[in-house]
Amino acid sequence: MEKYKRETLLLIFLTISSVATSTSPAWMPMDGNNPTSYCLSWRLAIETNNVRAWRIVPLQCMRYVEVYMLAGQYERDVELIVEHINVYLNEIVLPGDGMDAWILDVDDTCLSNVFYYRLKRYGDLTCRCDPYDPTGFRTWAMKGGSPAIQPVLELFNNLIETGFKVFLVTGRDEETLRQATVENLHNEGFTGYERLIMRTVENKKQSATTYKTIIRKKMMEEGYRIWGNVGDQWSDLQGEYSGNRTFKLPNPMYFVP
Amino acid sequence: MEKYKRETLLLIFLTISSVATSTSPAWMPMDGNNPTSYCLSWRLAIETNNVRAWRIVPLQCMRYVEVYMLAGQYERDVELIVEHINVYLNEIVLPGDGMDAWILDVDDTCLSNVFYYRLKRYGDLTCRCDPYDPTGFRTWAMKGGSPAIQPVLELFNNLIETGFKVFLVTGRDEETLRQATVENLHNEGFTGYERLIMRTVENKKQSATTYKTIIRKKMMEEGYRIWGNVGDQWSDLQGEYSGNRTFKLPNPMYFVP
Repeated sequence: MEKYKRETLLLIFLTISSVATSTSPAWMPMDGNNPTSYCLSWRLAIETNNVRAWRIVPLQCMRYVEVYMLAGQYERDVELIVEHINVYLNEIVLPGDGMDAWILDVDDTCLSNVFYYRLKRYGDLTCRCDPYDPTGFRTWAMKGGSPAIQPVLELFNNLIETGFKVFLVTGRDEETLRQATVENLHNEGFTGYERLIMRTVENKKQSATTYKTIIRKKMMEEGYRIWGNVGDQWSDLQGEYSGNRTFKLPNPMYFVP
Repeated sequence: MEKYKRETLLLIFLTISSVATSTSPAWMPMDGNNPTSYCLSWRLAIETNNVRAWRIVPLQCMRYVEVYMLAGQYERDVELIVEHINVYLNEIVLPGDGMDAWILDVDDTCLSNVFYYRLKRYGDLTCRCDPYDPTGFRTWAMKGGSPAIQPVLELFNNLIETGFKVFLVTGRDEETLRQATVENLHNEGFTGYERLIMRTVENKKQSATTYKTIIRKKMMEEGYRIWGNVGDQWSDLQGEYSGNRTFKLPNPMYFVP
């Protein structure tokens, strides 16, 4: 795995260099009359679930999304959400019967795929890099080189220390990706979770919302209380049994229906 | 009403002047290491309903919120949401039996109260200007001088032309504010709506979510199909019978539970 870590670090270095040396500065004007202002509006619209089923990042926002994801604002946004999750956690008095559950999604919640989507140029149609490329994603995920999203890793550890059973629920394919996902999570520090629930043959044709709702229903039937549910897609958080509180992490790179 | 319009226009002029001549430029840095970056994160967190029951704008974000609301980005954000509502509208084939309904909230959806909350300094605790001041708000609302939010007025007219019955559903008090609200709406161009539903004595102790859910339930029982529901608060959009699509408009000024 060390090889992939080195590759990842190199990629991070190259990326940050290219962002830092770019001629267009990483500033967001607020006067409402320029492309960046449009991209701010677009990001708000997708994050609030006003715009749905979007397939690719608008062409004029690709650079914006890259700067957002890699120059610090994305991480700051996630950090603030985790701070507020911690405020909520401090209010909870756990019954302590071992049935207190918390759900985390995996892709772009625990593990970041920004470098995959960066290579796909966030869906730029002028290159042959459709981001909805199951083979391409499988190849990426098989490498097990997705870095941890640090504030979520800290949340994960805090949850386990506090006494929650953490369920990782992902749309990744059980058959082909279990081993690589387990290893990736382990190498990035995600250890001690209760279960890693992946999509099996019987869930294959379900939408993410349906699949994840079925999983949550089973958990409830087993007697678990779902105190919280964190994901980067609204399809992680909608549907029944969604949890006592849900938290939407930002993801302006892609949409999962 | 002309007097209030003139006052409003003067206030807009003074406000825009003060924003334009301010020494701190209306730019939003993206590097994640400054107060404005914090305020961007905060705004994302409240708009996605990750942070709830917040009482006042954080002190370090008051200037940010003012620039956001008055220097163009807020209007741009609303415009983009209305564009996407129009995309959705174009997909609908109305049965045309007169039972096609659309719900709009009033305060900070149809009519803007930015100048009220500006006077309240968005809840600045260092002055005596708590934004949750029923008497203060009633005095403001009685004047009937809240300007239309232009993209929503365009949507309103488009909905009526398309054949929807538009229901305005507001938490404003029926007894004291009906006349002023009707006049304010009329003077700002909101004419031809089906009903203006206001909070009566029997709804007085209900939360906004409960009250608005009861109203929507009654509409459904009358046979209306709720195609869409637009509000600036999550409490406008949550609960049962929320509508086929909901659209959250931005509001970083205050939170209604």
